[in-house]
Amino acid sequence: MFAPAYLDHNATTPLDPQVREAMLPWFGGRFGNGSSRHEYGRAARKAIDEARAQVAAAVNAHPTEVLFTSGGSEANNLFIKGAAANLKPGLVAISAIEHPCVREPARQLQRAGWRCEEIAVDGAGRLDMSDFQRLLADKPKLVSVMLANNETGVIQDVPVLAAQVRARGGWMHCDAVQALGKIDVDFRELGVHGLTLSAHKIYGPIGAGALIVDKRVELAPLIAGGGQERNLRSGTENVMAIVGFGAACERAVALRRDRTERLGRLQQRLERGLVALGATIFSVEAERLANNSFFAMAGVDGETLVGKLDRAGYAVASGSACSSANPEPSHTLLAMGVEAGLARSAVRVSFGDGSTEQDVDGFLGALRENLENLRTLAAMAV
Amino acid sequence: MFAPAYLDHNATTPLDPQVREAMLPWFGGRFGNGSSRHEYGRAARKAIDEARAQVAAAVNAHPTEVLFTSGGSEANNLFIKGAAANLKPGLVAISAIEHPCVREPARQLQRAGWRCEEIAVDGAGRLDMSDFQRLLADKPKLVSVMLANNETGVIQDVPVLAAQVRARGGWMHCDAVQALGKIDVDFRELGVHGLTLSAHKIYGPIGAGALIVDKRVELAPLIAGGGQERNLRSGTENVMAIVGFGAACERAVALRRDRTERLGRLQQRLERGLVALGATIFSVEAERLANNSFFAMAGVDGETLVGKLDRAGYAVASGSACSSANPEPSHTLLAMGVEAGLARSAVRVSFGDGSTEQDVDGFLGALRENLENLRTLAAMAV
Repeated sequence: MFAPAYLDHNATTPLDPQVREAMLPWFGGRFGNGSSRHEYGRAARKAIDEARAQVAAAVNAHPTEVLFTSGGSEANNLFIKGAAANLKPGLVAISAIEHPCVREPARQLQRAGWRCEEIAVDGAGRLDMSDFQRLLADKPKLVSVMLANNETGVIQDVPVLAAQVRARGGWMHCDAVQALGKIDVDFRELGVHGLTLSAHKIYGPIGAGALIVDKRVELAPLIAGGGQERNLRSGTENVMAIVGFGAACERAVALRRDRTERLGRLQQRLERGLVALGATIFSVEAERLANNSFFAMAGVDGETLVGKLDRAGYAVASGSACSSANPEPSHTLLAMGVEAGLARSAVRVSFGDGSTEQDVDGFLGALRENLENLRTLAAMAV
Repeated sequence: MFAPAYLDHNATTPLDPQVREAMLPWFGGRFGNGSSRHEYGRAARKAIDEARAQVAAAVNAHPTEVLFTSGGSEANNLFIKGAAANLKPGLVAISAIEHPCVREPARQLQRAGWRCEEIAVDGAGRLDMSDFQRLLADKPKLVSVMLANNETGVIQDVPVLAAQVRARGGWMHCDAVQALGKIDVDFRELGVHGLTLSAHKIYGPIGAGALIVDKRVELAPLIAGGGQERNLRSGTENVMAIVGFGAACERAVALRRDRTERLGRLQQRLERGLVALGATIFSVEAERLANNSFFAMAGVDGETLVGKLDRAGYAVASGSACSSANPEPSHTLLAMGVEAGLARSAVRVSFGDGSTEQDVDGFLGALRENLENLRTLAAMAV
């Protein structure tokens, strides 16, 4: 396999070697169903409980507040649909830049008589506080605002939002999938009732995520059955993935500062180069994650550019990975008021453990070259 | 770790070495989000598609009929809740011996105005055809009957049931999690609209399952979001587990006859010994899977016996693994009309690839010894 430099860590990350090490016994000879009463089952149960403690510790939660799921999408759906199932229909308010796995379940609630409204964002991708107040006045029963956006990296002031939602008697949920490992994520300080995490965005395996949940929220399970996870998520626990998730959480906290510092330098180096090439970098005015840059080269199609860059040896994204199957422009950018043409030019670079200064410089070189070619072609086509 | 002989393959199975081999690249350096447009994403997509073809081939389905899920519990919930969401409330009929991950979602439908009824079974655990006809007369909109029971191993005549449900215009679902790899499972011959499979019961990894689904069934997703799996199951695909599932399916078909023949001999050897010890073996009159024996030693608590056998070096189950957290007697046995006291004595032995004649003989010896001890203690306590 030809291996381009991987600059798409917001889509997924490779396994951290120490995470792999922790998972290895369960990939090798160990196995067991955590519900079994014999030695194999007890060993699986113990491994799951240790991982639960690691995940809880990473976000300052209690282990009994951790519900393991198959990933972030399931955790987001579980909170929104699971909480709604035990409430009388009312208003569900989500930010206009939520990941589809928050937006779609919120919209699905409309079938059950809920009203789903989006909270606007400003041009930099920050929540519009007056629009938030407008919706708050309608006493939303459920509110979901992500901690850090998967495309722009913009960080929202969730503690302030959560305090106001709580004061009005609503349940506040926060998707922290992109934030974990990049900024401090503290369940208590955020003051939310539900918090979504995912392993594969923090150098853990695909197949494990968690909903950290305040026990006052009465959830209905999405997946009912054998009664695992306090009867809120049935199904044989994916021990190997959960063990990896626990290890990844421990590493995410331990390495958070060093990773952020190092990746922030790559981000700055990249963005200096991008500005020199005439790029529009989105959300520079806002507080952002240190590992990614979302930008556009006016007049150049983002999808086409990403394809060219891939062949030139640089794997980057044109929109959020999960909606890449759909060539619509980024809904985050449209919500920010970015004109559709410019939004279609968007490219996302997200750095991670393996990224180097050479990658940055090489990427900028490849970008410059491809831009010249694409613009020449565009000029010829006119 | 002290490793008893593992005789609980209906709860979960160890990884087949060839399955592990297939997964290894994705545990090692390979990784990628199947939705990404670059080389890493395309490689993940290709691996997922290859596994989809393997799973489809194993059950004579078309690859586009395969929806990957996180496991069997999710697939069962997806069919039942997902199909119900697009139907007007009516009757959902399930067998009285379904796994909780069929029974619980069917019962959850009652909240939405559905009537949930159970189809009785006879003393051997076979569907009571007159009770089936009774419910059929009420035109059930959804019917779910498992192909092989996880405790007794009893095989139901699903093609006959499905034909009648189809004729009345209902959707027919079948949980084939325990059947796959042990008997032939053919989506077309079964004639069902939905078929549930799981990787970790066939020497594949925990974390992957599938719903094989007739496209005429309009499903609503349980997990909505990025639009993966034809918009019916969002979330980044667990490439490693899916690749293992594909490999396990291929092996399950290739080895089916040999495995069944070998395990059937162990089953017979075990049951001869059990009869000699005075055991009641459940469902011997019915057509059963070749790998397991569900029996009871009258007057001896099954849970206690399983604990003793574990310490003596034999890992077996007292009830179905997924409900082991709950010490209620097996609902399968109660549905068969087995008296609660005898049901509490039940023990399940399920053989698999690693099981040997020595395991059988050693297990019988340990059983004899522990029975004597337990009965002596019981006599002293009187």
